[in-house]
Amino acid sequence: MRQDGRSKSEIRTVNMIPHFTKYAEGSVLIAMGDTKVICTASIEHRVPPFLRNKGKGWLAAEYSMLPRATAERTVREAAKGTRTGRTMEIQRLIGRALRAVIDLDKIGERTLWVDCDVIQADGGTRTASITGAYVAVVLALKKARDEGLITKWPVKDFLAAISVGILSKEGAVCDLCYEEDAKAEVDMNVVCTGSGKFVEVQGSGEEAVFSEAQLTECLSLAKNGIRTLIEEQRAVLGDAVSFIDTAANGDGSYE
Amino acid sequence: MRQDGRSKSEIRTVNMIPHFTKYAEGSVLIAMGDTKVICTASIEHRVPPFLRNKGKGWLAAEYSMLPRATAERTVREAAKGTRTGRTMEIQRLIGRALRAVIDLDKIGERTLWVDCDVIQADGGTRTASITGAYVAVVLALKKARDEGLITKWPVKDFLAAISVGILSKEGAVCDLCYEEDAKAEVDMNVVCTGSGKFVEVQGSGEEAVFSEAQLTECLSLAKNGIRTLIEEQRAVLGDAVSFIDTAANGDGSYE
Amino acid sequence: MRQDGRSKSEIRTVNMIPHFTKYAEGSVLIAMGDTKVICTASIEHRVPPFLRNKGKGWLAAEYSMLPRATAERTVREAAKGTRTGRTMEIQRLIGRALRAVIDLDKIGERTLWVDCDVIQADGGTRTASITGAYVAVVLALKKARDEGLITKWPVKDFLAAISVGILSKEGAVCDLCYEEDAKAEVDMNVVCTGSGKFVEVQGSGEEAVFSEAQLTECLSLAKNGIRTLIEEQRAVLGDAVSFIDTAANGDGSYE
Amino acid sequence: MRQDGRSKSEIRTVNMIPHFTKYAEGSVLIAMGDTKVICTASIEHRVPPFLRNKGKGWLAAEYSMLPRATAERTVREAAKGTRTGRTMEIQRLIGRALRAVIDLDKIGERTLWVDCDVIQADGGTRTASITGAYVAVVLALKKARDEGLITKWPVKDFLAAISVGILSKEGAVCDLCYEEDAKAEVDMNVVCTGSGKFVEVQGSGEEAVFSEAQLTECLSLAKNGIRTLIEEQRAVLGDAVSFIDTAANGDGSYE
Amino acid sequence: MRQDGRSKSEIRTVNMIPHFTKYAEGSVLIAMGDTKVICTASIEHRVPPFLRNKGKGWLAAEYSMLPRATAERTVREAAKGTRTGRTMEIQRLIGRALRAVIDLDKIGERTLWVDCDVIQADGGTRTASITGAYVAVVLALKKARDEGLITKWPVKDFLAAISVGILSKEGAVCDLCYEEDAKAEVDMNVVCTGSGKFVEVQGSGEEAVFSEAQLTECLSLAKNGIRTLIEEQRAVLGDAVSFIDTAANGDGSYE
Amino acid sequence: MRQDGRSKSEIRTVNMIPHFTKYAEGSVLIAMGDTKVICTASIEHRVPPFLRNKGKGWLAAEYSMLPRATAERTVREAAKGTRTGRTMEIQRLIGRALRAVIDLDKIGERTLWVDCDVIQADGGTRTASITGAYVAVVLALKKARDEGLITKWPVKDFLAAISVGILSKEGAVCDLCYEEDAKAEVDMNVVCTGSGKFVEVQGSGEEAVFSEAQLTECLSLAKNGIRTLIEEQRAVLGDAVSFIDTAANGDGSYE
Repeated sequence: MRQDGRSKSEIRTVNMIPHFTKYAEGSVLIAMGDTKVICTASIEHRVPPFLRNKGKGWLAAEYSMLPRATAERTVREAAKGTRTGRTMEIQRLIGRALRAVIDLDKIGERTLWVDCDVIQADGGTRTASITGAYVAVVLALKKARDEGLITKWPVKDFLAAISVGILSKEGAVCDLCYEEDAKAEVDMNVVCTGSGKFVEVQGSGEEAVFSEAQLTECLSLAKNGIRTLIEEQRAVLGDAVSFIDTAANGDGSYE
Repeated sequence: MRQDGRSKSEIRTVNMIPHFTKYAEGSVLIAMGDTKVICTASIEHRVPPFLRNKGKGWLAAEYSMLPRATAERTVREAAKGTRTGRTMEIQRLIGRALRAVIDLDKIGERTLWVDCDVIQADGGTRTASITGAYVAVVLALKKARDEGLITKWPVKDFLAAISVGILSKEGAVCDLCYEEDAKAEVDMNVVCTGSGKFVEVQGSGEEAVFSEAQLTECLSLAKNGIRTLIEEQRAVLGDAVSFIDTAANGDGSYE
Repeated sequence: MRQDGRSKSEIRTVNMIPHFTKYAEGSVLIAMGDTKVICTASIEHRVPPFLRNKGKGWLAAEYSMLPRATAERTVREAAKGTRTGRTMEIQRLIGRALRAVIDLDKIGERTLWVDCDVIQADGGTRTASITGAYVAVVLALKKARDEGLITKWPVKDFLAAISVGILSKEGAVCDLCYEEDAKAEVDMNVVCTGSGKFVEVQGSGEEAVFSEAQLTECLSLAKNGIRTLIEEQRAVLGDAVSFIDTAANGDGSYE
Repeated sequence: MRQDGRSKSEIRTVNMIPHFTKYAEGSVLIAMGDTKVICTASIEHRVPPFLRNKGKGWLAAEYSMLPRATAERTVREAAKGTRTGRTMEIQRLIGRALRAVIDLDKIGERTLWVDCDVIQADGGTRTASITGAYVAVVLALKKARDEGLITKWPVKDFLAAISVGILSKEGAVCDLCYEEDAKAEVDMNVVCTGSGKFVEVQGSGEEAVFSEAQLTECLSLAKNGIRTLIEEQRAVLGDAVSFIDTAANGDGSYE
Repeated sequence: MRQDGRSKSEIRTVNMIPHFTKYAEGSVLIAMGDTKVICTASIEHRVPPFLRNKGKGWLAAEYSMLPRATAERTVREAAKGTRTGRTMEIQRLIGRALRAVIDLDKIGERTLWVDCDVIQADGGTRTASITGAYVAVVLALKKARDEGLITKWPVKDFLAAISVGILSKEGAVCDLCYEEDAKAEVDMNVVCTGSGKFVEVQGSGEEAVFSEAQLTECLSLAKNGIRTLIEEQRAVLGDAVSFIDTAANGDGSYE
Repeated sequence: MRQDGRSKSEIRTVNMIPHFTKYAEGSVLIAMGDTKVICTASIEHRVPPFLRNKGKGWLAAEYSMLPRATAERTVREAAKGTRTGRTMEIQRLIGRALRAVIDLDKIGERTLWVDCDVIQADGGTRTASITGAYVAVVLALKKARDEGLITKWPVKDFLAAISVGILSKEGAVCDLCYEEDAKAEVDMNVVCTGSGKFVEVQGSGEEAVFSEAQLTECLSLAKNGIRTLIEEQRAVLGDAVSFIDTAANGDGSYE
């Protein structure tokens, strides 16, 4: 039994409010327990220099935390004048994960800007950001399709992410809250598609190591949690679901 | 008649959700029409170097906008590595305004950090930030008092802010939305206390000038709007209201 | 009676040396008492990106203090690698004030760069900068007109600025020196045109508040001081005076 | 058969020159094929602020590439004034990996600075950095022990890293050179201990996804390659080998 | 004959106004022809970290140009957020030169801050800065001695600097104005003491080379020019002259 | 006799390994005693903005030290986000020196990027950088000529650099190691061509001064040392030697 009463495979209550802000082409407020992230997707009608005149698009992600998203106030990166390594690593991960399921050849010379701003942080902010950002991006692309900006549907599959970890007492558990995360010996972030394929597997033991058996157990917990998250995404994506299902081999079933 | 049907003295619908985030000592989500700002107040148990060992506290404010708070995506200040002049000016204004009604001798060697993060911007973000930040600060100080951190009540009066402006067609109007702001010839931001005194008056004509009569009309509209805002603050501040009223000469009435 | 023997409405001795440096299109050394500022106006034959191909010009201002303009040596902003909020706020104010009386449609696709470098600071550096910068800009534009670079006279009116403040003992006074400024309860900066209209009114009480009556008294002192400053500007502007008078409805009289 | 004639499980020729520079407490030049990295370990007799007065040490890593380590000259990060996300991510990985096998409680209040400077880059620079940095750190700690600076041996196990990837034609291969890396669909970096436990598993498909079976195959190739690397480390570490073997349960055998 | 009628060994008209600003402990406005520099010396009652608790002082110099000191407006270094290599090189030179004649053991744990701000630049700004900075420093130290802050006189000798150069037509000339400097094949900056010793010799041919004979001729011109400058310094230094003469072996004669 | 047994005119053992790295157009590892620098020359097919469309090329140099090139670890400039004044000064010197013997009109609109990365520092890193960079540049240009990129030979003469200094005990000595450099009263860096002309003479006494006789003695030692260095350059430059000799008046003899 975990500190908040969940079983080891149980994820926290997920809540997504689509169209959370009025200007972004796509937006969602995602809550996984007390972790809350505003995700927006913006469409810019140009690409970075290295892609110009190649007829394809780009997707870039940025991640940030409000100063008081955390128990202690964090200094703003704008005040320091530079972004931390942690921020850089997270926004690279978000962008890479999303690009795995978006066919950028189909959006023209445009950039999808994904912004994940953490309002409240209780563990798993990077995976909640990916899960929410996917929804924001799909909503933005659905709008672009409805307006005739794009003619071919670029989203190849569903995508969600979850954290798993190994605690000394509870063993492997899924979707760690901050307190669990702080004491975990092994920390893993897993990103999967709707068809159950891996997009990212990042496992790390800061002061510990892990065996192949432990890795296998963690990955199984992760896949299970991601399956639930994708069901939640389906519930808020409305019309766009059928487009994705069609792109993902006609059924979009999870594995 | 204004574009959204309001009279010239009418402010937009105000909505404040106190205790919006769980970690900050005080927090509120303030909405004035489509302008939405998360305001938090944090108590740090030390002061900046220039105040050390003087037995008094400090209040510092920071202001930021999410990239997609605006119709076009704005580049993050953390990405540019520097804050714009506009941001600097606004956060100096917020801090200065709040310090006018907080007796910093009564909070000990602590810093009140005020963070105003604009989620959605439709004009008047700096004045909404001040009105919301005041609520967050009072909630934080009430909590500090309840926990015995401070023993003397430091808030001397209510405080709220509003924008007024002069349009070529409509004349002087109160609480401009973005579209009105963009075409205003004169732009004014006014901060008042609950007793109707001025804390800040900032009037500026970018490509126009204004007479003393116009200034007087604007200030009258501003005072009227601020009176309404302070009523809204009273409604969400609960127990803290009586502390403020007592500090403000026993009645706290507006003028 | 004030500490330096002035009456409450009396401004300090003003001294302006036009053509102070040889390269700038317009320049002046302005002294208001011990406050001394070198103001230059430079004409650059291009505009910032947001104005390109619109056939109109721009005016941008920068403000800085020599490290030893102050009683204690101040660290250079170039050494810190960033400009303070105070500097940003002041240079935004200078630019905005000047743009109110210059018709930028009449200078073509050019930028007027205004540089205000404080050599010695004894209070009122931002208002002295505006008063001096106006002179530098007019000299630069007169030169541009004489050389045929511009054909329509773009300066619509005179412009000057002064500080006013409220001291606990002396009450409202005009043109504060540093010592007065340091103990003022309310601090106001006012920018007016030659025809007595307001361009900027910035009043602020850091640890105090002020009433409408006090505001009115301050504005009256400010207008009076600005009238004197504009007389001084007339004395150093030579031929350009008649151009400005003509643009300001044939007489250029102050109210 | 791969482009350079290697089998899919074969790693490139490894060459390590210990004591490559004269000032660092430990240093090595590691070459894996054409990838060449200078790794140094420095002992600083203080710890970062967050660890002060806790009686334990810290290990921090930095990574950089000479401008002409690459086929096209890269702009120096010192010239840009900021480090890229890639650099940040890599140096965080190197530090985290090494901390997994160093017992920082046993080095006192000291910081082990690990510097990995890539002289020539032909794929796998981050894994070569980890493998080389481990050697530099052990040499530095052996020296510290010989000099009596530390009394308990802090290195708990061997540590090395390798890249694996999935190519469309060749399938899963071990230790990719730059050309292979550029066309790999899935890219994986694996860090293991001498006892065959995982320290880090980072698998990522930028425009592709991967199955659990593919992950398993990659991990097997990685473990195999790392076994060879650890044999090379043994050959250059001299006396220190027996200390590590003793710490790693008396034998230090690989799985 | 040179373009401005000077002989090859003739320096431009020198003018120094001591006590130019009121706050600095020592200050001077130096003009060499149209090159004008405000030099101030400030005494700070602490030293940089590397000198703490060693009972000796430090001297640091900073150099800057007003944006419109030059024919074309230069971007401020504070706006760029970084200082150019040229600025860094010049301020290192100024500091090093002055430290050669100041005995820092005699000023206690204090820092002499030297600020050289170029108001107008017509060649030779770095050498004019050194010549003027020397005067500012002596005035500041004389004041410190008069006030009893220091008891031993720390200035060991006079110090001044001049530029020399080789032009294709005129040959070697002394004290180049901007136009001469722009076409010089060899550019030399020389700093000497009152007793005719070298403190700095920096000779450089950007697209040319120079022989030992040419070097000798240049150095002779430089020494001659510096002799004249030191006479000018004597004229403005008043009482301090005898202190310096005494320190410089009783006579202070040049060579 | 010097501390390492050398005579006052004797330089340390020089060792140059040409073609040290595989990607750069030209590269060398130069060792002067324990000072070791990797020098590379890269050809970029464009020029900086100020030279565009003028049909001539540019040469730019960058200099850096590995953190542990020194006895104590130095903080990386990329970590500080800015380059020190020392670095700026050195890379300006390297670039200026090389441009004196390269005819940039003959390389077309290209930039020669010279990178000097100090692996190990034992005094004289800037002069070793110049001597090595010259070799790297000649190798790169020889390759460019062999490939037909350039048709006219742009290298006008040999170029090398050495340090000289004056020690209180030993007097003037050539090619100082770190320990000698640290105690030198006068420090000089001299750059000469193969024909014995000066390109740069930089002499500086931080806490001392020097006479013309001392300068002359130092320059003589420098020329002598440089003669030896140029012999070493000849030995590693192969075919390119005859091109340089031809350009340098048919013989390339030293003085």
